[in-house]
Amino acid sequence: MQTASLSANQLNFSGGPGALPESVLQKVQESINAVPEVGLSILGISHRSDWFQNIVSQTEKNIKSLLGLDAQYHILFLQGGATQQFSMIPLSFLEPGQTADYLNTGYWSTKSIQAPQYGQQFNTIWSGESSKFNHLPHNDNLNFNTNAAYFHYTSNETVEGIQFQEIMGLDSVPRICDMSSDFLSKPVDAQKFDLIYAHAQKNIGPAGVTVVIIKDSLLQQANPKLPGFLNYATQIKHHSVYNTPPVFSIYVVHLITQWLIKDIGGLTAMGQLNNAKAQTLYDFLDHSHGFYQGHALQKDRSMMNVVFNLPSLDLEATFLNEAQKLGLSGLNGHRSIGGIRASLYNGLSLEAVEQLILFMRHFQNQFAG
Amino acid sequence: MQTASLSANQLNFSGGPGALPESVLQKVQESINAVPEVGLSILGISHRSDWFQNIVSQTEKNIKSLLGLDAQYHILFLQGGATQQFSMIPLSFLEPGQTADYLNTGYWSTKSIQAPQYGQQFNTIWSGESSKFNHLPHNDNLNFNTNAAYFHYTSNETVEGIQFQEIMGLDSVPRICDMSSDFLSKPVDAQKFDLIYAHAQKNIGPAGVTVVIIKDSLLQQANPKLPGFLNYATQIKHHSVYNTPPVFSIYVVHLITQWLIKDIGGLTAMGQLNNAKAQTLYDFLDHSHGFYQGHALQKDRSMMNVVFNLPSLDLEATFLNEAQKLGLSGLNGHRSIGGIRASLYNGLSLEAVEQLILFMRHFQNQFAG
Repeated sequence: MQTASLSANQLNFSGGPGALPESVLQKVQESINAVPEVGLSILGISHRSDWFQNIVSQTEKNIKSLLGLDAQYHILFLQGGATQQFSMIPLSFLEPGQTADYLNTGYWSTKSIQAPQYGQQFNTIWSGESSKFNHLPHNDNLNFNTNAAYFHYTSNETVEGIQFQEIMGLDSVPRICDMSSDFLSKPVDAQKFDLIYAHAQKNIGPAGVTVVIIKDSLLQQANPKLPGFLNYATQIKHHSVYNTPPVFSIYVVHLITQWLIKDIGGLTAMGQLNNAKAQTLYDFLDHSHGFYQGHALQKDRSMMNVVFNLPSLDLEATFLNEAQKLGLSGLNGHRSIGGIRASLYNGLSLEAVEQLILFMRHFQNQFAG
Repeated sequence: MQTASLSANQLNFSGGPGALPESVLQKVQESINAVPEVGLSILGISHRSDWFQNIVSQTEKNIKSLLGLDAQYHILFLQGGATQQFSMIPLSFLEPGQTADYLNTGYWSTKSIQAPQYGQQFNTIWSGESSKFNHLPHNDNLNFNTNAAYFHYTSNETVEGIQFQEIMGLDSVPRICDMSSDFLSKPVDAQKFDLIYAHAQKNIGPAGVTVVIIKDSLLQQANPKLPGFLNYATQIKHHSVYNTPPVFSIYVVHLITQWLIKDIGGLTAMGQLNNAKAQTLYDFLDHSHGFYQGHALQKDRSMMNVVFNLPSLDLEATFLNEAQKLGLSGLNGHRSIGGIRASLYNGLSLEAVEQLILFMRHFQNQFAG
């Protein structure tokens, strides 16, 4: 089987940690030796240095600018991933006896609902489990609890490849969203949210840092009795440097936000690029005469994670094997559902998608019955 | 003022994050483009890949081998720094109504004692606060509580530059030690401990990962009701990949442990090197006719952090300024006590210490009254 030549490195379709842009990786590489304006390796720069404090401020500003957030919002860089947020949110905003509304739309929202509760209660007001999470609800079909302490949902489900096209919930109830897998991938009306969280390792950096955006009015309701590292107010007071933060990971997020602003031209442009990548691949699936079967209903398809099956498990194994040989990496579906998944995060180019389609066309020609 | 020429990069005497060895930084730099055996950037490699699972296993084995730990011990790579451990330890091992013994030997043990307690009690059985933490107690002078749930101390205080020369506590009470700033810097009888923790950013890697070593007998007593990310047993069951771990930081720790084993030749050799660096600098202080005044009593001096003062605040400011100009970076004392601090972690060479002394000799010649 032949395909156009690939670069020395593999193309990375991994569900996460995912591909980062080449131009950013070059700057990161340089910083391992020395950050030019400091003369020290990024791995040995003090988190209390003026330089790093400025990187934190700049990255906060960049995120606010990209999302159009005003002074009502705080930006945090925390550790522990989305998983830590699954617990920090109820510990902070749900008093014993209170309830919160959750949507169960896939693997990751299921995880958010499984976080331990200590006398509080999560209400799952919708679940797509019985239909294998292949579609999403709409606001019109949901019965929101107007007395909920907050409403929580997951904007994009990476495992099943489904993504909300609308902002969910009521404006009268604090709206909390796990945007881990589509954060800064397209424009979003971010001021509609009271808390947004996103680990970095899909679109904006390496594993090890999680961005949290929190509206001051919600912050005022947070449980003040949590230890500092789990306490949003303490972390905000210290501008994410309550204790030593993941300096390197935050620096990479800084570089990615600079790249989004200066090289890409903002989230509208980023969204157009991401949309072009996804549409190209979905169009190809839709014209494969059923050889490649998408998992998600068309209306709820994810722009980030294209999840599909081949006619048999054997063919899927052969597909993954052949792809890997050609340098198309990370195409295996999540271990919970199998199949194939092509993740098309910010750092993956349209050319990489075209390479994938070239391979998929050859593969279908060879193996279709 | 003249001194021998320095490399293009500054010499890093920072208290942390600190210097890493050049040969390791070169491998890290290469991995940003692509880890050779994988063909992907280290920032985009899945934490579920065979390659990374193997890196975790290998790093666990390397740490066990360096410290001579047997099968009774588990190794974890967690997020949140020592600060998270300050809370995880009492939450895990101290039931309401129980007490634990703590030593208050400096800035960092004070922090460990300030962690919130929820119906439990820490007993501070010794404090060096009244003597500005310039010395340490000995086992013979302490009244340990034989019924304590555990005993906690800090092996090296980075801010004040004092370090225990003996293992503290009773063998009959679980012994827990914050070794953040001298972990893997010298041999230690690690099997005397029930739990050791150390964030990476002094001797073994970048900020963003914390190594925890826990004896199975202590683990069996841990509170099982904590959320997964705060639950030692859950983290051990998943070999530190309960959720996405800080892949990059763990990879650097892997490279450092390889370097310690293969290039340095183990902890005895590392300890000799570190001792040579510290002794060279302390000898110089002791022969400066009081121009450079060490903070710590001689018997408790730290091999990692050499903390000293000059005759006046003005001279200290001039010293830091001149040092920085010559590429001697990070010599400012901790913001809590000021003065000068030279941190001599694993990654800093003896040549760097000699450069520092050369500068200090010139400075004294110029400014001594």
